[in-house]
Formats: sequence, C-alpha cells, structure tokens
Amino acid sequence: MGIPSKMWLKGMAEQKATNVHWHEGDITTEDRNKLLRQKGATIWFTGLSGSGKSTIAVALEGVLYDMGHLCYRLDGDNVRLGINKNLGFSAEDRTENIRRVGEVSKLFVDTGVIALSSFISPYRADRDQVRALHDAAGMDFIEVFVDVPLDVAENRDPKGLYKKARAGEIKGFTGIDDPYEAPLHPELVLNSHEMSLEDEVTAILSLLRARNVLPAENN
Amino acid sequence: MGIPSKMWLKGMAEQKATNVHWHEGDITTEDRNKLLRQKGATIWFTGLSGSGKSTIAVALEGVLYDMGHLCYRLDGDNVRLGINKNLGFSAEDRTENIRRVGEVSKLFVDTGVIALSSFISPYRADRDQVRALHDAAGMDFIEVFVDVPLDVAENRDPKGLYKKARAGEIKGFTGIDDPYEAPLHPELVLNSHEMSLEDEVTAILSLLRARNVLPAENN
Repeated sequence: MGIPSKMWLKGMAEQKATNVHWHEGDITTEDRNKLLRQKGATIWFTGLSGSGKSTIAVALEGVLYDMGHLCYRLDGDNVRLGINKNLGFSAEDRTENIRRVGEVSKLFVDTGVIALSSFISPYRADRDQVRALHDAAGMDFIEVFVDVPLDVAENRDPKGLYKKARAGEIKGFTGIDDPYEAPLHPELVLNSHEMSLEDEVTAILSLLRARNVLPAENN
Repeated sequence: MGIPSKMWLKGMAEQKATNVHWHEGDITTEDRNKLLRQKGATIWFTGLSGSGKSTIAVALEGVLYDMGHLCYRLDGDNVRLGINKNLGFSAEDRTENIRRVGEVSKLFVDTGVIALSSFISPYRADRDQVRALHDAAGMDFIEVFVDVPLDVAENRDPKGLYKKARAGEIKGFTGIDDPYEAPLHPELVLNSHEMSLEDEVTAILSLLRARNVLPAENN
C-alpha cells in the first residue's frame, strides 16, 4: 500500500468520523483486565526435564481457553528459537535466558494475559529474581514446582536427553551434571507421578480463583 | 500457600470434577484470534524522535480499546527498562534491541494481540529483519512510517534531546550524528505535521480492516 493521498484521507475522515471516539486518558492494565474478564498473571512451572511441566501447562491452557480465558505458553520451543536464540546453556546464559523470559512474562501480565511459563529454570536465584520483578510491579507470580524424583523423570525420558547426558553426549544437563535447586516457598507443589492430570489442573484453577486471577465460579 | 494434601485435592476433584473439560488438541493462534474477535498483528511505528509515533500509538490504543480490541504498546519506556536493560545505543546494541522487540512482537501476534511497537528503529536492515521474521511465520507486519522533516521534529523536541545532541551532550543521536534510513515500502506513511490525529487513526483503522486484523464494520 502506498502513501494515502490527503484527498482520500479527508474524504474518509468525513465519511467515517463517527467511528473515532477518543478515549480519556491512557489505557491501563486494569482496563485490559476488565476487557478480558481476568487478571494477568504469571504461572511459572519449574522442575526437571520430564517432570511433566509441559503436559500440565498444555492441559491447563485447553481448560482455560474453554472457559473463555486468554493465556499463552512460553517454553523452550518458542523462546530458544526466538528471542533467546543467541543464548546457550552456560550458567551465565541460563540466567540471562530466565531473566528475559521473566521480562516477557511481565509484559504479558501487563497486557492482561495469563502467562504459562514452563522452564526447567534450575537456579533458585534466577527464579527468585523473576518473582522480585513481578512483586516490584505488583504483579502475580505463581511458582508451581512440578516435583518428581530424578529416577521417575529419567525413566520417562520423553526426549531421550537423560540417555544422552548419561552417555556424556550432553554436558551440563540438569539433574545429571548440573544442579536443580528446588523452590523453598512455591505457591503450589505438584507431584505429577502421584497425581492425576485432572487433580493437578483443578488445584491450579482453585489457586487462580483464590487469587482473583479468575473470577469466582458463578455456576 | 503450602503443599496441598492429597486428601484435600481428592476431595476437591470429586466435588469440582465437572468443571474440568478437556480440550481436544492444542490451542492454536487461530483459536485465540477467535476468542478475541480480531487477528493478532504487529503495527510497527518508525520515525525520528519527536515525529509523533507515541502520540499516534496512544490515540490508536484508546480507540481500539473502546471498540473492544486488545492491543499492547511496546516502546522504549517498557523495553529499555526491562528486557533490553542490558543494551546501550551502539549500532550493535540497537540491532539487538530491535531484534528482541521484533521477537516479543511475534509472541504477542501469536497470542492474538495487536502489538503497537513504537521505536525510532533507524536502520532499514533491522526493520526488514523483523518483517522477515513475521513473514516467515505468516504473521501481519504493518510498517507505519511517521514521516516529518527533521526541523519539525527538532522544533518540537518534546524531551529536549535534540538540544542536547546539538550541544554534543548526546552522541549518536538519530537525525543529528546517526542516520535515519527511511522505509522504502511501508504499508502506511503518516505526515504527522500535515495531518490531524483523527485522520491518522482513521487511516490505520481502515488498513486494519482491509487486512482482516479487525472485522469489517458491522454498523
């Protein structure tokens, strides 16, 4: 499309002027929350590779959608290939990876969206930094620790990564030769090897209602 | 909140099981667009400091909100202090700044949100890279060139930055001692010194309807 001519614009403005209603003042986070009938929040899933983070996030996403709520999953798949494609897996890069994801999550919360951020995020200090960023902005940060024993995750090994790590083909793999630092005060712990997916999703929904991220049930 | 007991979860699941309806398949961008009754898109405002980018984006945001649409403004204020706070103003850092903003814009489009990305973004190659990222994902990238002569922008000087740049207090300032490379094929050119704000917003709305970002007018 080229440059619109002044004549055309003038004609259009005369014809459609009634469609432009100026809004008083800037649009705020509260305005967007109202539009979406929810409160933006970050649900941060942390846990070992194979612990069940993505499975829970995907199930929750479907349930929230069917309830008419807007959420978005952030995970290694859409972040490592995009905004963080210039980062590796050194301790320094892992920290920057989580910092950026935390900032993106905050932008989603500001938009009114429920961010489902699903990352191993093995270092406590990195997660606590994301929490502090949310706290400072008065935003909800809900840390969900998907907690299964290492041997359970390793037996699942959905991507064959533990096998490669044990064979020394992957270095610095969380749980094998890189530490996983469990959360000290998560909002929720889900032992995915002992709970049904339905129980896990129900527990999260209950928490979201309690924190007014979702409106109270009206049925 | 501590760890929920299995007993409590079991009781809750029994009581509220009817609230969990499993959704078939993953939620897609199209699903979210449907929920929001719009199509996610990036509107990229480029132009000199003082050209009017923010003024137009703020006005558009208010009008879209009153129409029931979800958009979000990305600009130096919420990006330079957040996800890009570890970047400066060297050519390399400007490029990385725009790359990250482009990736964040893509995440918003994927969510179904209309991203209003307002950045001087002086280098053509950087903007074209963001356009290419959107094109590759089949996403709408709408480049709006807010085009005013340098002397107009400099006379406005809303932040007093031109004065400082002329005095040598700011180095590498776009339009003074750093280049601004005008878009060759923008979707829209707005000469903010010759157009009313209403005409500018009307022109953008018309374009958004033509590209099905907004539904056709039904009134």
